[in-house]
Parts: sequence; C-alpha cells; structure tokens
Amino acid sequence: MFKKFGAVALSTGLVFSGIGLSSVDAAKPDHSGKGKGKLENGKVENVIYMIPDGFSSNYAANYRAYKGNDAVWDEHLKGMFTTNSANSDITDSAAAGTAMATGQKTNNGVIGLDPEGNKLKTILEASEEKGKSSGLVATSTITHATPASFATHVSDRNNETEIARQLIDSDVDVILGGGKNNFLPKSQNGNQEELNLIKKAKDKNFEFVETRDQLLNSEVEKGEKLLGLFAGGALSPELHRGETDEPSLAEMTDQAIDVLEEDKDGFFLVVEGSQIDWAGHANDAAWAMSDVEAFEAAVQEAIQFAEQDGKTLVVVAGDHDTGGITTGANDFLEVNADLLHNVTATGDYMAAQLNKERSNVNEIVETYTGLTLSDEEIETIKVADDAALAINTVVSNHALVGWTSTNHTGADIPVYAFGPQSNNFVGFHDNTDLPKLIADALKLK
Amino acid sequence: MFKKFGAVALSTGLVFSGIGLSSVDAAKPDHSGKGKGKLENGKVENVIYMIPDGFSSNYAANYRAYKGNDAVWDEHLKGMFTTNSANSDITDSAAAGTAMATGQKTNNGVIGLDPEGNKLKTILEASEEKGKSSGLVATSTITHATPASFATHVSDRNNETEIARQLIDSDVDVILGGGKNNFLPKSQNGNQEELNLIKKAKDKNFEFVETRDQLLNSEVEKGEKLLGLFAGGALSPELHRGETDEPSLAEMTDQAIDVLEEDKDGFFLVVEGSQIDWAGHANDAAWAMSDVEAFEAAVQEAIQFAEQDGKTLVVVAGDHDTGGITTGANDFLEVNADLLHNVTATGDYMAAQLNKERSNVNEIVETYTGLTLSDEEIETIKVADDAALAINTVVSNHALVGWTSTNHTGADIPVYAFGPQSNNFVGFHDNTDLPKLIADALKLK
Repeated sequence: MFKKFGAVALSTGLVFSGIGLSSVDAAKPDHSGKGKGKLENGKVENVIYMIPDGFSSNYAANYRAYKGNDAVWDEHLKGMFTTNSANSDITDSAAAGTAMATGQKTNNGVIGLDPEGNKLKTILEASEEKGKSSGLVATSTITHATPASFATHVSDRNNETEIARQLIDSDVDVILGGGKNNFLPKSQNGNQEELNLIKKAKDKNFEFVETRDQLLNSEVEKGEKLLGLFAGGALSPELHRGETDEPSLAEMTDQAIDVLEEDKDGFFLVVEGSQIDWAGHANDAAWAMSDVEAFEAAVQEAIQFAEQDGKTLVVVAGDHDTGGITTGANDFLEVNADLLHNVTATGDYMAAQLNKERSNVNEIVETYTGLTLSDEEIETIKVADDAALAINTVVSNHALVGWTSTNHTGADIPVYAFGPQSNNFVGFHDNTDLPKLIADALKLK
Repeated sequence: MFKKFGAVALSTGLVFSGIGLSSVDAAKPDHSGKGKGKLENGKVENVIYMIPDGFSSNYAANYRAYKGNDAVWDEHLKGMFTTNSANSDITDSAAAGTAMATGQKTNNGVIGLDPEGNKLKTILEASEEKGKSSGLVATSTITHATPASFATHVSDRNNETEIARQLIDSDVDVILGGGKNNFLPKSQNGNQEELNLIKKAKDKNFEFVETRDQLLNSEVEKGEKLLGLFAGGALSPELHRGETDEPSLAEMTDQAIDVLEEDKDGFFLVVEGSQIDWAGHANDAAWAMSDVEAFEAAVQEAIQFAEQDGKTLVVVAGDHDTGGITTGANDFLEVNADLLHNVTATGDYMAAQLNKERSNVNEIVETYTGLTLSDEEIETIKVADDAALAINTVVSNHALVGWTSTNHTGADIPVYAFGPQSNNFVGFHDNTDLPKLIADALKLK
C-alpha cells in the first residue's frame, strides 16, 4: 500500500515545471559578517550536482570508519530529505532522478515525464535555456536512469537506445560514462536504418573518446563538445578499474569541468557515482566503500574547482538508500568497515572464480579478502543459491556492516552543499525541493 | 578494535570542562530580516533538552510512515552528529549521556566522569550555577544512565542507589520518572544505616508524588521542589501504560515546565524518551513507534511552551541508534510501519502469555497484533530460543521494518532545534558539541 508521507507538507506551494521556476520558502541563513559569508551569499554561475546513487547516512558513517577520517562532504552537511516516488513509498532511480532533476514526483521507472506522461523540464535544460553549458558524467551506462533524468524524457528507463538518441539530440555538451553499445547500430536487428549515434555526435561537433588516455589527452576546442564512452556497458567497479583502460570518476569530472568552464555563461554538470547502488543491491560492502571512495575523489575535484572559482555551487545528494545498510551489526559495539580495504574484488568477481563444486571457496575468498573463513562460513557459501551474495554476507559480517534488503529502502537522505547559496539547503526537505533550491540559487526565473 | 573517527577533527579547540565553557566555532546563520529571525536570534533563558534514547534517522522515517505525516520535529532538523565513546566505536547510553551533558568523551558505562575518573561539570550544573532551576524527566528509572549523566558522577552506571543518593543531594529541582526502589532502604541488606532518600527529599523541601493523579493535582509552592517516582523500576512501555496509574511523558514534561517556569532566572530541563532504546534492543517495532509517539507528545508540550515563551531553546537529539533499524526491508519497495498501530502489546508481554508448549502462538499473536500468521511463522516462534524476539521479528517483517542488531549501532544521529539560537545547531557535529552549542546559546561563560 502506498502512503504519501514526508513530502506532503513540503510540496505545498512549490512549483517547478515547464512553465516557470518559482521560489522555495526555505531557510536561507545569512552568514554576512563572517569571512565565509561572502562566498555563501555570492552569485552562482555554475552548479555541480553530484549524486552518489544509493548513498544514505549509514554509508556516510561506514565510509568514515573505512577512511579513518571525515569524508570531504561531512563538514558540508546541510540537511536531509525524503525520497518516496509518485506511486511507491520507496523510489527507484528513475523516479528519484526525475524528482531531483525536475522538482516533480513521477512513477518508478519513468524518466523526465510526470505520471500522466507530460514532459517535465529539467534543471539542466532550464540552465541551458539561460545560455549555460551542461554535462553528464556517470560510471554506469550514461543512458542509465539517473543521468538520463536530467536530459531525456522516456516512459521506460530500460529504453536506453531511445535515451541515447535523445541525449545526442539534446544540448548537453559533455557526456562521459559507459554504454557505447546503446549508441551503435544493433546489427542483430538487421535494421539498416538504425542510427550510429556516435557518428551523429561527431557530425554535431562532438569530439569522441573511448579510453582513459584519449580522455586525458583530449583537447576540446571552444565550441566543441565531448562524448566519452569507455565501455560497451557499465564501467567497471572501482575495485576492478585498474584492469581496464577506463578513466576514474574524478578524472571524468575534472575533464568535464575543464571543457565546461570555458563557457562564460556558466555550466550545469551532473556527476553520478552510479555503482554505490549496485554494490548495495549486492550487499557488497567492499564494492560500496571503494566506489564511495572514487566518488569522494570526484567531489574533491568539484570542491577544489569551486573554491578557486568562487561562483560554483556544489550539491551532493544520494537519490535513496540501497540495501538497508547499517553501521555496525550483529550485536557488536564495533564499526569495522576499515577492514574492507583488504578486499580486492567484488563478490560477483569472486563467485565467478569458484569451480563447479565450489571446493575452492576458502582459497578464493582468502585470496581476494584476506579473511580466513570458518568451516561454517565456507559451507554457507558452498550451498548458497547465490554464491556472490553469500560471500558478500560473510565479508559484511566481518566488517560488521549490516544489510536488511537487496533493494532500495525509504531512509531519509543527507544533502551536502558547498559554495555560494549553499545554506539554502539547510533543513528538512523532499527530493523535489532540491532542483527548486538550485533554481533559486541560479535565479532561474 | 577501536578507531576514532568523526569526532577527531571536530573536537579540536573545543573545551567544556569544570574550568570554563568556551565558544564553538559553528555555523550561526542569521535570520534577521525575516519574521522568524527575531526569535532565532533572541536570548535563551530556558533550555529543554529532549533525548529520545536510541533514536536515529531511520526511526524518524519509520515514524513518519507510522504517523502518516511529518513528526513535530522534522521541520526543525538542523544537522547530524557522531556518537562514538572514548573507548568504543559504538557508545552506550552512559558515555553518550556524559558526552551530551559535559562535552567530553568517556568510556562506556561511566557517568559524569572522564576516562581517568575526574569529575566533569554538566551543562545542567553550569546552568544551576547561573541561578537557573533544573529538572530531569524520564520513563526509565530516573537513576538510569541518560538522566543520571546530567546531575551525577559515578564510575558504574549500574550503581543506581548511589545515583539516587547523588540526585537527592544535587540541586535538581524536579525529578520525575521511575525507580522508586532505588530511593528506599533495601531491607534485604539488613543495613539500618541505609538512607530513605524519599524521606530525605521531603526534608529537603521536595513535594513527593507517586501516581498520575497526584502529579496532575500537585501544587508546588514557590521554592518547593518536586519528586515524582511512579514505579519501583522503570515506567511501563506506552503500549501498557493504560493498565497503570502512571503519567505520560508529556504529562510529566508539562508538570515539570509548570514548576520550573516559576524561576525568573530560567531553567534547564532534560526529558528522556527512555524506552525507544529498549524497544530497539528487543527489535520491537510497535513498542518503538508507540514510545516515539509518546515522546513526540512531550516534544509538542515543550515546543508549545517555547512558542509562547519566546526565550526557550528546545533541542531534540537521540544518543545513538539502537537495533540497526531500517525503513523498509526484505526487498520490498514499501514502508509499512503504519500497520504497527494494530499492535497492542510488546513482544515481551505476548511471549509471557504463551503456554509452556507454545500451542497458543497463533491466538496470542493475532489477539495483540491483528496479524494472521503463516504456519511457518508460527513454527518459527514455537521453536525460538527467545519467543519475544521471534514474535517481534515476525511483526517487523509484516511492517517491513528491518533490524541488524539487538545492540546499539554507530549511525549518525539527527539533531533538531527550535527557538532562539536554534540555528547554531546547523551542520555536522559530534555529540560532545551539543552541550557546547547550548552553553553558547545560554552564554554560560
């Protein structure tokens, strides 16, 4: 049964649609008189909207233990927000992305449309209308739900070929991530009419790159755009990126900023740490923490740029919790996420290394985790329906990371903000408030 | 292994000890120019420090689903804070209470002393030195760790008799809760010297009450104090309070404010919703939600008073998470905490109604929860080592409330604040920052 809660009181009086962007009556603390105040009250020309997919406050707390120190975002905590979708207590990434991009609730699975199928203007599109450049960066296919929500409009998130088509037809200037296959003709369709979207992109003045080296050495002339597709499907989990020629999320973010900052009218950049969510679905604590770490490096790039630039607002906000993760578990008074540094492969990868009889569980798991398993743990993995999940559960038990689901949950999500107008984000919000607060900061009316 | 994280960077430069109360360099947004601004920048004469023991943001999210609306605190969200103790990643309520009362970390189990055994001045004691009245209200024994941390100093939280003695010797003016047995001579000790602390309290000008009626009809003269002990041990869970003559937490809070507001120098009142934590230890979602509801009614009393008074700061902050609760669980995209309204007894109570063979599981659980159990659920409860936990787990599975522990976890905890100086609480903190921020608001230097 679906019950609306949280959002109800908040959304009253807020309008953000294709028609116009209205003001949100949020707390706007004034820091004037402090050194920091000038920046926080200043003008916003650029926005870097960073979305760690699946990241809740319990990821933040576990990551602090993993890192042994505060994360770069902790000191910029401003508030929390609710995430339910139009048709479910618990959102998927399409409805969440749409809410965070358009200020409107929609049904799970839907991108950039309201529940009736009407097209919703996104904050990225509104920024483009004001002359700003824009970019999308992700470690999933770039046609995945979250990045897609900012520049495309489709009734089914799974229609990634259509999303690719819309992306190339959009005004987005920098597109970096995975999903090359969605931009190429599917020969198995035998459809000769089908577009080669990469060719089309080149015709539309996109520089195209497909390896880390090409990206780092790319020289995008003023007026040119940048398309980087570094894998046929998703990019690799950070744990396995070293085995590929893919760039890191921080490198993609840095390059995107380099291209976009040439626009004197400013830019709107979306950066997603896509695979924290997938790690959560898999209950894979080591994949989660290493991908949070990769995301933190990207946030560091964004904040460094914002510090120098002075006119850039950086907003960091997950779209929902994945996995019902907890910080500590199983009755112990310890938080041991730091031992996940010893894990060098995902559970999926380890499971794929098991032989048919799974007689090598002990050897494989010890090799990739440094853990010595008990006989009981080995047996659990041997007989499990899902060997990867069983391995991940054993590792999580050692790290004392708890999980209650392999799906999303309804946890409130923290929002962090840095730069001018960042104090607009103070307090309790709904996910639909975020683009309205950004629109206010950008004076998009 | 104990790893300090979170608190490290924050505690640098903060001093709150027996010597002096220093300023905290926190964000202090200025709302001047807005109607609300005057209040938020105003003078603080009274503080009501409200602690829902064990309450984290996932309790907040589940409670919103249970209530079907925002809780009274949601709109007052200001930030989050870390909770580790001096000797553990995950705190107990003694170390947490001491941190929240004194601004100093101590070891688990220790109350009002630092890890070396030195006495720490509490924010309540510092308020008393400035001429303010003070009060402690709880639904546990009033000698339990959290309330005790504000006015007593003992190396072992279990020494509740010593805590009772120190409470009566302290300057606290209003003491309301359970734990009468800790104030009476223990005849079984055969120690004729042992004090009757209730008699001593009466000699020290305390009015003594022990029922709801006596409390509601009490007339405390100016200069008199109020001691209310409504049960030998803890008060009843809210689910079972109707069967007793105990007051509600809201009634105790209201009466405490009535007595304390007579002091023209202001007051410092601590109110604990004690049993949310116990419900969390039991993984009893219905007990948790109903005790959160009782706590919310108390917060409503405090905020109503603060709204009228204009010089009262209300701070609401749990001391830690209990149970590793999640909002949604078991792979469903629903949050069903609302069905917990149908539950009319704690799991402990239901388990106590089972016969020796547990042949009446179905009947008992259906009677007190309204749920029709599957054969598998009945069997699970029948064979469980801990029948109460098994019942609670079944109920939580229906409500889709997840748990990962029967102990505390290391979740970051939200802080809410209302009234003058409430914006001092904006941002990311450690639990030791809270009394420093309150001291700043009270100008206790």
